[in-house]
Amino acid sequence: MELSASEIAAKARRAANLLQNVTSAQKSFALARIRQVLEERKEAIFAANALDMKLAQEAVDQGKLSAALFKRLDIKGPNEEKFQTMLQGVTDVDNLDDPIGQVTMARELDQGLDLYRVTAPVGVIMVIFEARPEVVVNISCLAIKSSNAAILKGGKEAFHTLSVLTQVMQEAIERVAKEIDFPTDAIQLVSTREHISQLLDQDRYIDLVIPRGSNQLVRYIQNNTRIPVLGHADGVCSIYLDDSADLAKAPGLVVDSKTNYPAACNTAETLLVHQSLLGSEVFSRTIEALFENGVTLRCDTRSLDAIKASPALSQYSEGNQLVASAPEDYDSEFLDLIMALVVVDSLEQAIDHVNTHNSKHTDCIVTETPAHADKYMNCVDAAGVYWNASTRFADGFRYGFGTEIGVSTNKTHARGPVGLEGLTIYKYRLFGHGHKAGDFGVGAGKKQFSHRDIPLAEVKGKFIK
Amino acid sequence: MELSASEIAAKARRAANLLQNVTSAQKSFALARIRQVLEERKEAIFAANALDMKLAQEAVDQGKLSAALFKRLDIKGPNEEKFQTMLQGVTDVDNLDDPIGQVTMARELDQGLDLYRVTAPVGVIMVIFEARPEVVVNISCLAIKSSNAAILKGGKEAFHTLSVLTQVMQEAIERVAKEIDFPTDAIQLVSTREHISQLLDQDRYIDLVIPRGSNQLVRYIQNNTRIPVLGHADGVCSIYLDDSADLAKAPGLVVDSKTNYPAACNTAETLLVHQSLLGSEVFSRTIEALFENGVTLRCDTRSLDAIKASPALSQYSEGNQLVASAPEDYDSEFLDLIMALVVVDSLEQAIDHVNTHNSKHTDCIVTETPAHADKYMNCVDAAGVYWNASTRFADGFRYGFGTEIGVSTNKTHARGPVGLEGLTIYKYRLFGHGHKAGDFGVGAGKKQFSHRDIPLAEVKGKFIK
Repeated sequence: MELSASEIAAKARRAANLLQNVTSAQKSFALARIRQVLEERKEAIFAANALDMKLAQEAVDQGKLSAALFKRLDIKGPNEEKFQTMLQGVTDVDNLDDPIGQVTMARELDQGLDLYRVTAPVGVIMVIFEARPEVVVNISCLAIKSSNAAILKGGKEAFHTLSVLTQVMQEAIERVAKEIDFPTDAIQLVSTREHISQLLDQDRYIDLVIPRGSNQLVRYIQNNTRIPVLGHADGVCSIYLDDSADLAKAPGLVVDSKTNYPAACNTAETLLVHQSLLGSEVFSRTIEALFENGVTLRCDTRSLDAIKASPALSQYSEGNQLVASAPEDYDSEFLDLIMALVVVDSLEQAIDHVNTHNSKHTDCIVTETPAHADKYMNCVDAAGVYWNASTRFADGFRYGFGTEIGVSTNKTHARGPVGLEGLTIYKYRLFGHGHKAGDFGVGAGKKQFSHRDIPLAEVKGKFIK
Repeated sequence: MELSASEIAAKARRAANLLQNVTSAQKSFALARIRQVLEERKEAIFAANALDMKLAQEAVDQGKLSAALFKRLDIKGPNEEKFQTMLQGVTDVDNLDDPIGQVTMARELDQGLDLYRVTAPVGVIMVIFEARPEVVVNISCLAIKSSNAAILKGGKEAFHTLSVLTQVMQEAIERVAKEIDFPTDAIQLVSTREHISQLLDQDRYIDLVIPRGSNQLVRYIQNNTRIPVLGHADGVCSIYLDDSADLAKAPGLVVDSKTNYPAACNTAETLLVHQSLLGSEVFSRTIEALFENGVTLRCDTRSLDAIKASPALSQYSEGNQLVASAPEDYDSEFLDLIMALVVVDSLEQAIDHVNTHNSKHTDCIVTETPAHADKYMNCVDAAGVYWNASTRFADGFRYGFGTEIGVSTNKTHARGPVGLEGLTIYKYRLFGHGHKAGDFGVGAGKKQFSHRDIPLAEVKGKFIK
């Protein structure tokens, strides 16, 4: 009999409370055991995966599932490569610095009254993901490493694989719990959509929801919960060629930003061009490079006219790869080799366009004028503002975070590519010796606060267990 | 004609976009001008305040307004003291460090490809407050200092005062805008409840809502918006006397935590006592001190029996200040000289009680056993976990933040007393020289990321304008 949503959430909360007190060594012990049991049980995992693949193949044959989604289901890969990569991922997460117990502020308030701001787990996280079943292992490891309890929901195509992977991890945790204090409900899997809508009401127990999947999924979650949501629905990114854009940089940056991986959220969807560039070599070379890479351009009137009038682009004519844009193209995440093109009269107009249409994800200016780059980077309200660098760098691994929980377009908590830090918050720990607030204040005999900062170097590691 | 909610929100967003580019000097210039014009226009402000006071007096006489709320309306005070304090507050905010442009991470990704995480304004904040009209000035200054646009809504009792204060600040900003680039819509006031419910739908434009007022107000806001809310509905704090609680500390800490300011959110509402203390001097002295300070105790069976059986407390009998508790008392914020008392069998039971009933605000353990303090501080999931210190220290000024936006019981973004930092987020600024993501990866001729941390000391101030 499956548990109700509130029972699952309450169990997660109890596990989260217990996880507040685990040590770094205990977490490493659990992660090592998870890797070990996954390895021990790999044949059962492969069997479940083979069943999912068989059912998915039928769905592909019936046109109910895309070949791309089908491919992502495979957890084994040639020579077990994908499986081994997943196992290595467990160790990689374990090797990250413990994100819990880090002192981010230390201050003496009075003699013998010391205040520390110390990182702590968020508590209970719910992660909803689609396709790749190995994500369940990755997220579980990240949750454990950051001392959070996790409730996980994957795609129905991966039902059997996810069930076995979770059972195996739970078995590992149960074996761990026989040797050390460790909560057996740290990781729970739910499998039905009904569970999700009920869990989204459990704001009493669940602290953060992380949807990883389609725009539709994320938007559904955002619209149906009071729990904070970390993530992004849209990745409408852009690249702007300023009047001093360098011929040696512009075509390469635009092509990389658009074509390196068109289905990614950090792919540029809009190309903005300063009007002074129309007819220039920077313009024609950039457009030509996009055409050569198979990109279809949806153009405003000025850019369409300029392309048609360019002798260097005379081999391209309106039709196939060159079409007039509709207004909604400038708010669209194409996830394809399509790019909206707009001409602007000034840097300020470019900034205004980006702030009006884009999704606060990642936007790039290509310019040789430092003052323009500075103004653009100050004024564009996005998680990533780039100067002469491809939007495709917006990624936790590329930023050196070692892992990525997701990319956030939120304006609070965590923004941009989010590493383990996004699963942490802090507590204020105050150490006194009977200090009373009534002894401080204005007037005779009252004490004053000293408010002396304690150098962080002096207290480094003080709360790492 | 008053603007619609979406017009107000859109104006705030445009102002926020412009505020992304203001310098520290420009913000100081604006704040100085605000102080100056408030001083110049003080007679008009006092006249509006006198009108509000007159109308409020009538409401008090009719029993429609409490005397406490009436007293908070006064903006002048004896010898204009309150007004001068408000003006000094403008300067105090200006004197804080600029929270924007601080580098919190710096990393070379590759030669010539440098990534910086730099603090940035959240954008548009909406602050809803009750009673004290000078809050409108304080919040406006905090918003400007942190480069945010603000939409403000105060209590209807202060309508005339708030209107004039806001007009005066807007006049000051308009004068500023004639001399330097500064958005005139940085501060807007709305006056009707209808506006609030409509503004709570403007998540497209508004980034953060900060309700400062009654539990009912905060809960209403939390239940009626998708915009992130910073604050707290309840302040159910507690103090736990562990088995080794020190006689020299316990009575004073409990009395200060309960009686120093009973209406405050950081006041302790629940007293937990380890069962081994029943009948001890620590117990009887603590209970006696609470009784002497006028506190009514709502007791579970064991504590009630222990108090009745204590020879030292024989002068107190059941009735008036000593009553049996109901279950809901342990979830209640009394905001009065009332305290719920519960006996626990162990440290673990105390932790469990706190994590079950309290509002994740501030909780204290009184103990002489470091290992118990450590376990309690690890396991209690609250913004503040205190050892031998009064819960009343949970306050931005006492923490040395210079100001307080509010106290948050959120598990994301900002927790506990929140200073100017709570109005900031960050942007990732990436500086390249035409770097393309496709050049990095596995295989022949591909580049690897260097991921070399740049010491923050080297880049301190780099983005402060």
